[in-house]
Amino acid sequence: SDSYSLLILPGDGIGPEVMAEVVKVIDWFGANRGMSFDIRHGLVGGAAYDAHGTPLTDETMAEAQAVDAVLLGAVGGPKYDVLDFSVKPERGLLRLRKELDLYANLRPAQCFDALADFSSLKREVVAGLDILIVRELTSGVYFGEPRGIHADGNNPDNEGGRVGINTQRYTSGEIRRVARSAFELARRRNNKVCSMEKANVMESGILWREEVQWVHDNEYPDVDLTHMYADNGAMQLVRNPRQFDVIVTDNLFGDLLSDAAAMLTGSLGMLPSASLGAPMANGRPKAMYEPVHGSAPDIAGQGKANPIACILSFAMALRYSFDEGQAASDLERAVEKVLADGVRTADLMGPDGGTPVSTAEMGDRIVAAL
Amino acid sequence: SDSYSLLILPGDGIGPEVMAEVVKVIDWFGANRGMSFDIRHGLVGGAAYDAHGTPLTDETMAEAQAVDAVLLGAVGGPKYDVLDFSVKPERGLLRLRKELDLYANLRPAQCFDALADFSSLKREVVAGLDILIVRELTSGVYFGEPRGIHADGNNPDNEGGRVGINTQRYTSGEIRRVARSAFELARRRNNKVCSMEKANVMESGILWREEVQWVHDNEYPDVDLTHMYADNGAMQLVRNPRQFDVIVTDNLFGDLLSDAAAMLTGSLGMLPSASLGAPMANGRPKAMYEPVHGSAPDIAGQGKANPIACILSFAMALRYSFDEGQAASDLERAVEKVLADGVRTADLMGPDGGTPVSTAEMGDRIVAAL
Ligand SMILES: CC(C)[C@H](C(=O)O)[C@@H](O)C(=O)O
Ligand SMILES: CC(C)[C@H](C(=O)O)[C@@H](O)C(=O)O
Repeated sequence: SDSYSLLILPGDGIGPEVMAEVVKVIDWFGANRGMSFDIRHGLVGGAAYDAHGTPLTDETMAEAQAVDAVLLGAVGGPKYDVLDFSVKPERGLLRLRKELDLYANLRPAQCFDALADFSSLKREVVAGLDILIVRELTSGVYFGEPRGIHADGNNPDNEGGRVGINTQRYTSGEIRRVARSAFELARRRNNKVCSMEKANVMESGILWREEVQWVHDNEYPDVDLTHMYADNGAMQLVRNPRQFDVIVTDNLFGDLLSDAAAMLTGSLGMLPSASLGAPMANGRPKAMYEPVHGSAPDIAGQGKANPIACILSFAMALRYSFDEGQAASDLERAVEKVLADGVRTADLMGPDGGTPVSTAEMGDRIVAAL
Repeated sequence: SDSYSLLILPGDGIGPEVMAEVVKVIDWFGANRGMSFDIRHGLVGGAAYDAHGTPLTDETMAEAQAVDAVLLGAVGGPKYDVLDFSVKPERGLLRLRKELDLYANLRPAQCFDALADFSSLKREVVAGLDILIVRELTSGVYFGEPRGIHADGNNPDNEGGRVGINTQRYTSGEIRRVARSAFELARRRNNKVCSMEKANVMESGILWREEVQWVHDNEYPDVDLTHMYADNGAMQLVRNPRQFDVIVTDNLFGDLLSDAAAMLTGSLGMLPSASLGAPMANGRPKAMYEPVHGSAPDIAGQGKANPIACILSFAMALRYSFDEGQAASDLERAVEKVLADGVRTADLMGPDGGTPVSTAEMGDRIVAAL
């Protein structure tokens, strides 16, 4: 049977406690499905800074390059707000994305039936919602040069005397490859892609629109492609999110739009993500999997965190890294079953009652349901 | 009595028909409140392009500089999609904003009680919502240089061979002045400002955060200031928008976040905006007023458009340009009365019935209610 190598980076806040539940799930698949996992552990974010003075050591980066998939918990916390930009927890995450060249960030926003009433939106607007945001993850304003803050020496009109600069920069090749990811994924779903940018005010948005259209016309003419300005996209996500199937957009727009989309579902603690790059020598893509939620320092260490987003991120690893689609579906069904049974972490406790459980109990229940 | 000069630029799509209703309202105030208006008319956007081959002529720009306030309808439409970037309808709008130096864009997101059920969000989440987004409007990635699309000549890795660039650039002075606008406005409301950026990934966001904090600490220590990452801001707007009072953010984030906020209210056809600059010699600020909605080409010319957003934009002109706070409140109350009476344009027709009216009838009713 195949052997799968994983690097587990729990990170900060609730990262370690939700990741502990993922490890239970991995162990179950190892013991019961004849999969063999080679697991390494490492530090990222504030945890790495505390130990090594950097949010990601070169050794950990090298391990991330060597494994089939990285599983990441979450990074950041108020404790690290005072740190210099260059060593903030986020820099560890961004270095992983960039150096692994994980250009396609898949963020499903799915509304779980048992949880539809948690949404701030009306049930009839979000019930059954199942959209996939494909966010470009290795370019754009996150990485463009020049960047920085400097003195605006000779400008008497500039009270304060400083200037802050970032650069939005996309090559046609960067746009085409993430567009291909979106079209491929759409073919396995409802065959619709909506591309979002601000081509009415940004030239980089014009290039984005043209290149996505080019990939469509030349390679995926069978997929239904539309374009939308990102501000209208933000509106339409609030107004009627079910009009979308796959949304493809750049790094910064994707950051905002995918968070808005996640919140529509009402269950942020449920949402996984996958970040994929080019195939490695063994045919598997470079990959990192992480929950959409953050490190939630306010509830860390209290057994209150919901491990499902992180567990479903591992399901995405089974599907996209290891081609274990059946195992992925089984895990997703186990999660649904536990929810249908009314098992609830603190974030999922609503007026309809349910059985309150801790982070660890939720993990145990899911393993039992498997 | 005072004389107020106005430049009316109806623009494209439904712009002319909603502006016709504003003119009725202006005439009413002229006839009944002893105000004297000096009104000029001009073209902007596609309408100006059709007539003159440019979305804003130098003559119209000069008139905009000369008047107390510009009233703008809306610009754009599919007919102009094929135009070169440099002459697209939007360029006319952006030129007005930039050359009038209208750095503070005020976008109230208010949920009208009679219309709360139109929101895709639950009534209990949005009822009574009253937030004000202050968006920086003359800088950032909308105007930063370098910008453009060019050949990426020597890069064999760049399939497609082009690169698109925009520059996010803010000076400390640009940030401070819009921060002051936000703090001033907050003092007249609930004294709370939330500033949004991506200081965790963008240096321009760090500068933004530091300068807003500086203005607070040195000039507005009495106002309650918080900072939030813009992606979290997008989430929180969906989750619980009433946690906010005034939000201050940059041009691009403001574009997306204010549109999302507008859609929360469920009544986009109701929302006005004001764009304000520095005081002129007569003490009035440079100013432009426009509805938040777009040109809605699909319903243009059919008498279906809701003129209220444009009429309430004129109410903002009364308040911010002419210091006619009482007249502004009277106009706002007239709108509320008409809504409470069940008078509804097509966009406001819901399951609860109401009296359907055309664009022109809605204008007449509001004038009658005055
Ligand atoms: C933590 C932060 C750097 C990150 C981002 O901005 O990409 C996060 O918001 C995300 O969406 O994964
Ligand atoms: C029409 C367009 C240029 C404009 C913008 O992006 O600012 C619009 O979306 C707005 O928010 O006023």
